[in-house]
Amino acid sequence: MTTTYHPLSEQEAIEIARSLDHFFPANAKLSSKEIGDGNLNLVFHITDSESGKSLIMKQALPYAKVVGESWPLSLDRSRIESEALILQNKLAPGLAPIVYHYDPELALTIMEDLSDHVIMRKGLIEGTVYPHAAEHLSTFLAQTLFFTSDFGMNQQQKKVQLGKFINPDLCKITEDLIFDDPYTVSPNNSYEAAIEDAAEALRTDAALHLEVAILRDKFLTKAEALLHGDLHTGSVFATPESTKVIDPEFAYYGPMGFDIGAIIANLFMNYAGQEHWIGDAGKRAEFRAYLVETVRSLWTQFDAKFRKLWDEHNVDRLASSTPAFKAFYMSRLLQDAVGFAGCKIVRRIVGLSHVADIDSIPDAAARETAQRMALRIGTALIKANRSVRSIDEAIDIALSAAANK
Amino acid sequence: MTTTYHPLSEQEAIEIARSLDHFFPANAKLSSKEIGDGNLNLVFHITDSESGKSLIMKQALPYAKVVGESWPLSLDRSRIESEALILQNKLAPGLAPIVYHYDPELALTIMEDLSDHVIMRKGLIEGTVYPHAAEHLSTFLAQTLFFTSDFGMNQQQKKVQLGKFINPDLCKITEDLIFDDPYTVSPNNSYEAAIEDAAEALRTDAALHLEVAILRDKFLTKAEALLHGDLHTGSVFATPESTKVIDPEFAYYGPMGFDIGAIIANLFMNYAGQEHWIGDAGKRAEFRAYLVETVRSLWTQFDAKFRKLWDEHNVDRLASSTPAFKAFYMSRLLQDAVGFAGCKIVRRIVGLSHVADIDSIPDAAARETAQRMALRIGTALIKANRSVRSIDEAIDIALSAAANK
Repeated sequence: MTTTYHPLSEQEAIEIARSLDHFFPANAKLSSKEIGDGNLNLVFHITDSESGKSLIMKQALPYAKVVGESWPLSLDRSRIESEALILQNKLAPGLAPIVYHYDPELALTIMEDLSDHVIMRKGLIEGTVYPHAAEHLSTFLAQTLFFTSDFGMNQQQKKVQLGKFINPDLCKITEDLIFDDPYTVSPNNSYEAAIEDAAEALRTDAALHLEVAILRDKFLTKAEALLHGDLHTGSVFATPESTKVIDPEFAYYGPMGFDIGAIIANLFMNYAGQEHWIGDAGKRAEFRAYLVETVRSLWTQFDAKFRKLWDEHNVDRLASSTPAFKAFYMSRLLQDAVGFAGCKIVRRIVGLSHVADIDSIPDAAARETAQRMALRIGTALIKANRSVRSIDEAIDIALSAAANK
Repeated sequence: MTTTYHPLSEQEAIEIARSLDHFFPANAKLSSKEIGDGNLNLVFHITDSESGKSLIMKQALPYAKVVGESWPLSLDRSRIESEALILQNKLAPGLAPIVYHYDPELALTIMEDLSDHVIMRKGLIEGTVYPHAAEHLSTFLAQTLFFTSDFGMNQQQKKVQLGKFINPDLCKITEDLIFDDPYTVSPNNSYEAAIEDAAEALRTDAALHLEVAILRDKFLTKAEALLHGDLHTGSVFATPESTKVIDPEFAYYGPMGFDIGAIIANLFMNYAGQEHWIGDAGKRAEFRAYLVETVRSLWTQFDAKFRKLWDEHNVDRLASSTPAFKAFYMSRLLQDAVGFAGCKIVRRIVGLSHVADIDSIPDAAARETAQRMALRIGTALIKANRSVRSIDEAIDIALSAAANK
């Protein structure tokens, strides 16, 4: 089905879907709906009204449309995404969509339809409890991070694999939007005038800049494992029983804590946003307690699973025979996760790209309250990152900051 | 002059040299001498007895012969070496041999003849003072490390450049021989029975293993800059006026401190070996003081030059506007250098590959004294690496260990 790259029409998408071997029955009545946001990719939802079978076709666009501006983006991210999905599904079966086909010419990935799932961010805003999310996400993180690291795979093959996931265009988005713009005057920043004082404080806090510079340096240089690279709750499809991590187009070899921190950050941002979404104070406190326990459980389960993999599958002789190094490593990994979580919160309040948990709060005062709470949590986590000793301590720091204690 | 890969004969080397445009005059009377050690590469010294002009042709062999064993080694290291040499000479002009031609098919690099220089290790064993070595080597280190890092070049191009210097085969040699074998029972280890107790101590010291595991992890994951990768005094051609860094076939993106530590390690190993080489106690003390001052000056000059580059050429907005990060970075870089220096000393005493400064001491008792002194220095530097605050403190630690204080 290979042809020269061009953005597909819905009719072309249907024809490509029909040509897939054995996926749809011969008498399939296919229809297509483009469901992408149109900023980075086209996403076609192809369904057969006869058999009820369906699939997703995701095609990369050669640019990113953000706030009207157009940034050129390599189509190679489509290869990176499809290869990352295939690897993630191999390492964490059932926790990422299945890839049926990848077409490099068209920058097109054909994959499992997960439309029976809901984007986790949306679910959390609606107050949905996901009792298995911490279990599933900690498995996804432990399996994908361990088995792509120097502990879980041949160390020479890891270097070659790293080379296949060099991802300059997408990394630059993170480097600019997360690790630079929020701490300076930048045309990419976007926030409401009401929090100008808080945004100004970010630009003038030398102690904060030191920590962010250290974390930025880790993002730039610390090639520990193949990251998802953009693991916020908008990259998670969930039901109360099932969890699927999607959209790894930012995948590259980086510091493990970045993926872990992304989930933690987004749980805390939902926590801040619940100032508005759940009106009843008792129910709000209950849901917030659930969010906090999800953070705690995510790390605790990840920590246990990663240590078990270390004990049973570590290919690095020195690492596996040095228990103090395992303790050192897990401790520093938590610290990295806490620091990156903070950075991911801050950028969602003052940077280019925001989250619906907070931005879609209709009432301006409640929105401002949530924004300020998120910024307090984010900056507190950043400042504490190199001294945090446990997830309980990290949570205490976040909750004290949230309460403005 | 491209042809299928095969190890060249001296006659073929002469023919290739003759075919180089405009290098030798038409009436050149070329002769060739193979001067390599035959373990990793063929090295032809081609001279024209008429004009006096000469050059070096270095051809990679597809294996490494070490203690009778044959390890397969990718010929791609020849590309890496020639590309590294060209880049190093561009960034630190005059401090690396000039490359005249590179032939990828033959894995052959044709370069400047430096036979008027002496291998620095040999010179130091003979008690030669190199008054400009610290100045030249600190310039080489500052220029090559800064301008290949995320501070000195476009951060997206750096990722692509990193991909070109993925060097699994050569990195594996370092990972095994420096960061693993010396701390366990390995057939690669080699030391005299007289120091079995000291070798045994390396295998059972849990605190030492923690530090080595942390340093190994940095070598495996910390892609800060394009390293030379094997910067011992046998990779330096020197005269009292001139310094040329050669043989960067281990080049890869790694932690800057590894290159700096390599030089420091080899100066301290010469210090230990001088127990024998300079019989006169006064002259020995004087030469050792010179070696120690070279260590101090190397770091002090490197530190000043790197900071100046940071101030004047840093492309990273956040790093360049955060003075505390510069201080943090230089402090951690010294610590890395100290730790890697220690690892590089230890492996030269009990590991596969030794140094003439110590191993060629003819008297067994003096040799053992030097070996034990070097091991004390090495382990002390490794254990102190994460707490060292200054080069003076590092030197004090090394000298106290040398004196067994």
